[in-house]
Amino acid sequence: MSDPYGAMLIDAVERQAFEQEIIERDDGFFDTSTIDYYLAPFRRWDAVERRALRYVRGRVLDVGCGAGRVALELQARGREVVAIDPSPGAVEVTRGRGVRDVRLMRLEDVDASLGGFGTVLMYGNNFGLLGSRSKARRLLRRLRPLAERIVAGSTDVSRTEDPLHLAYERRNRRRGRMPGQRRLRVRYRNLVSPWFDFLQVSPDEMSDLIDGTGWSVKRLFGDDGFYYVAVLA
Amino acid sequence: MSDPYGAMLIDAVERQAFEQEIIERDDGFFDTSTIDYYLAPFRRWDAVERRALRYVRGRVLDVGCGAGRVALELQARGREVVAIDPSPGAVEVTRGRGVRDVRLMRLEDVDASLGGFGTVLMYGNNFGLLGSRSKARRLLRRLRPLAERIVAGSTDVSRTEDPLHLAYERRNRRRGRMPGQRRLRVRYRNLVSPWFDFLQVSPDEMSDLIDGTGWSVKRLFGDDGFYYVAVLA
Repeated sequence: MSDPYGAMLIDAVERQAFEQEIIERDDGFFDTSTIDYYLAPFRRWDAVERRALRYVRGRVLDVGCGAGRVALELQARGREVVAIDPSPGAVEVTRGRGVRDVRLMRLEDVDASLGGFGTVLMYGNNFGLLGSRSKARRLLRRLRPLAERIVAGSTDVSRTEDPLHLAYERRNRRRGRMPGQRRLRVRYRNLVSPWFDFLQVSPDEMSDLIDGTGWSVKRLFGDDGFYYVAVLA
Repeated sequence: MSDPYGAMLIDAVERQAFEQEIIERDDGFFDTSTIDYYLAPFRRWDAVERRALRYVRGRVLDVGCGAGRVALELQARGREVVAIDPSPGAVEVTRGRGVRDVRLMRLEDVDASLGGFGTVLMYGNNFGLLGSRSKARRLLRRLRPLAERIVAGSTDVSRTEDPLHLAYERRNRRRGRMPGQRRLRVRYRNLVSPWFDFLQVSPDEMSDLIDGTGWSVKRLFGDDGFYYVAVLA
C-alpha cells in the first residue's frame, strides 16, 4: 500500500527534507502546504490549539497523530496517550520520536479494547477524518461510551471567497454532500494515496452534524477565523 | 490555452499569494518549488547567476523572462533588453513590473526580425528550454547569426543520488533521449499546462551537445555544484 504521507514524514525526520505536502482534490485542484507543522513544538502551534489544550483531561486518544507533535507534548505534561494513525510511516516516525503507545489504526477501528479515554483529540484539522455526514454520525455515536470529551480542530470553509472552492461547495450541495466534504488524495514524489473524504465544517454545521449523537459543542476557540477548535462533551 | 505558470505569477504579484509551483514529471514524480525566486532582487539571486552577469554584453534577449527578474535588473543597468516568454501571464506580469519590451514568443520563433543581440540570456535553468538534443542543436544553429554570446544556466543532474531520478535517467538513455531530458507539465490550482520537454545537462554534456553548432563553452561558473552558468560564444 502506497504511503506518501508516511514517506514524507520519514524524509522530514530522517533527512531534514522539508518538502511540501501536495494535496489533489477530485476536481483537479492542487494545493500544497508546508510540513514543518507536523513537527512543530508547542510554542509554534496555532494559537487556538494552544489555548484549547487545557481542556484536555485524563487519558488521551490522539487521532491521526502524524509525526507525534501533539502526543509528545501531552506525554511531556504527564498524560497517558494512545496515538493512532493509519499511515505506517507516521506510526514509525511517532514511535521513533519517543511516543510510547502508538498504534497503526484507523479511527473507524477504535473500540473498547483500547480502554476508556478522558479525551479524544483531533488536532491539525483532524475533525476532517470523520469523512462525511453519515460516517461522522456513526463514528461519534460509537465514541460516546469510550470518551468523556472530544477536542477537535476544523476549518470553516464557508468563509472562503475563492471561486474554485465555492464552485466545489456548490457541487457538493447538489450531490447531497456537506459543502466542506472534500475528496482528496496525497501525493509525495512518485507516491499517491487512495482517495479519501476529508470533512471541513463551520461551527454551526458541526452543531447540526453532531445533534443526536450524544455529543454537543461546549466551547469554541477561534470561531471568528478559518481554523477553530471545538470542545465536545 | 491553460496558463498555470502565468496564473501563478499573476497571483504572486497581484495578491502576494506565494503558492508553490508544482511540477509533474511523466513518471508520476511530483516536485514543488518556491516561486519567490521569480521575483528575487539581484542580491538574492543564486551566486553563479550574479557572478556570470558581468559577461552580459550589448543588447540582450531574455529568454523565458518569467516575472521579469533578470530583464528588470539589466534595464536598471542601462541595457536594452527584449524579454520573451510563451506564457501570456508571464508577459503581463513582466510588462506590469516595468520591462519596456516584452513579447509573447517562444524561443523557437526568434528570428532576425527581432534584430541582433550581444547576448542571449537563459537564466533560471532556461538552457532547459532547448528541450532535447535535436531541438537544442537546431535552435543553437539558428541563434548563431543573431547573437554574439549565450549566457545560460543549467543543472547538472548527473550529480543526483536520488534513486527515482537515476531510474528516470536510465529510462531516458534506453529510449535514446539525453539523461536529463524531462517531460514535465506545470500545475497550479486547477490549471495544468501541456507536456513539454525540459533539458538539463552536465557541463560535459553541454560541450558535446553544442559541438558543431557554431558555439563553444568559453567559461563556466559553479560547475562544482548542481546549478551552473555557462558562457557560450
